[in-house]
Amino acid sequence: MNLFTFFRSGTAHRVRIALGLKGLSATHSYVDLRVDEQLEPPYAEVNPQKLLPALVVDGKVMIQSPAILEWLEETHPTPPLLPSDPMHRAHVRALAAIVGCDIHPVNNRRILQYLRQQFGASEEAVQTWCGRWIGDGFDAYEAMLRADPGRGAFSFGNAPTLADLYLIPQVESARRFNVDMSRWPLISAVDAACLALPAFADAAPLNQPDAPH
Amino acid sequence: MNLFTFFRSGTAHRVRIALGLKGLSATHSYVDLRVDEQLEPPYAEVNPQKLLPALVVDGKVMIQSPAILEWLEETHPTPPLLPSDPMHRAHVRALAAIVGCDIHPVNNRRILQYLRQQFGASEEAVQTWCGRWIGDGFDAYEAMLRADPGRGAFSFGNAPTLADLYLIPQVESARRFNVDMSRWPLISAVDAACLALPAFADAAPLNQPDAPH
Repeated sequence: MNLFTFFRSGTAHRVRIALGLKGLSATHSYVDLRVDEQLEPPYAEVNPQKLLPALVVDGKVMIQSPAILEWLEETHPTPPLLPSDPMHRAHVRALAAIVGCDIHPVNNRRILQYLRQQFGASEEAVQTWCGRWIGDGFDAYEAMLRADPGRGAFSFGNAPTLADLYLIPQVESARRFNVDMSRWPLISAVDAACLALPAFADAAPLNQPDAPH
Repeated sequence: MNLFTFFRSGTAHRVRIALGLKGLSATHSYVDLRVDEQLEPPYAEVNPQKLLPALVVDGKVMIQSPAILEWLEETHPTPPLLPSDPMHRAHVRALAAIVGCDIHPVNNRRILQYLRQQFGASEEAVQTWCGRWIGDGFDAYEAMLRADPGRGAFSFGNAPTLADLYLIPQVESARRFNVDMSRWPLISAVDAACLALPAFADAAPLNQPDAPH
């Protein structure tokens, strides 16, 4: 397996965590988003959407982290990242989608570039934008954690699930945008529980070989 | 089952199509997004994220269309909306995520309201914004359709899949934003093939009881 990744890509970060939790290893190809390497060959020929990540398995390319993560779960089911009960699976996938659909894509680099270039947004305005969608999403996420009577130290139950793979990169990004995390004590506790695990620590942006020293 | 829906919600539209394809019926509760009914009780108490849709089954609330659709597939597997081969499933889910992550949420109503109110965006600027993300996403979607040698009349194979449930509401939305669909002939052909099926026609926005007459 080969993963196209960038240390700061939140979507590649999810896949790095999943590979670690599943005990799988992948070679890395680094795509530097800071200089828009994703828009040009060779990467643009790997993924026509020109976004990270892509996972290549037996010469076949998979794109879109939600699809890659479900593929990893189906083909390498141990340890599971989804519970067995369908309603519980829907709950975990809903938590993941709060981040994966309604926070991350709206704060993605291409969107922020558009705000700066087309709307003349200042860096303060960009931070306010990011904080708004993170806040709305985390408010919902926190409410769902609070309403779950069976929850342990993680987003669901007593072990990491798909939801945590989405949450932890988003918390990392929130801190980078100077969002005050004290508003979400349950999310903050889940973040701490996850970061104590090697798979999460090893996948962290600043622990990647392509991160600045 | 009870579905919280609005005729023009693209995410509720996906679930309406899935219910139709699976031969399932659900009662409807209408939430009028035009007057922000989703932000207040009773709906805000059903879904803490205050976004559509929500599906209530045996008194339990599910939110987020990606989670609801996977639940429907797991609990009502016939007819299938995902192929059986894991790599094919990843391909279909990637197509769905191009729309579900990288087009729809960025053009969602709350985002456009923010652009108007905080950045003073004109309606022309809002249409340009929507057209940009639809264009980027549809370019990638079209490229993936073109590169798939086994494809029939739909996004994958010869029957509707999860990908079509995301694509058709997005094409509907693109037309509403005056996006010229002639740039994507394969997507346009898939759209026509889907709309010829009763489940897609019945789920269309203007065929909903809460649509204006």
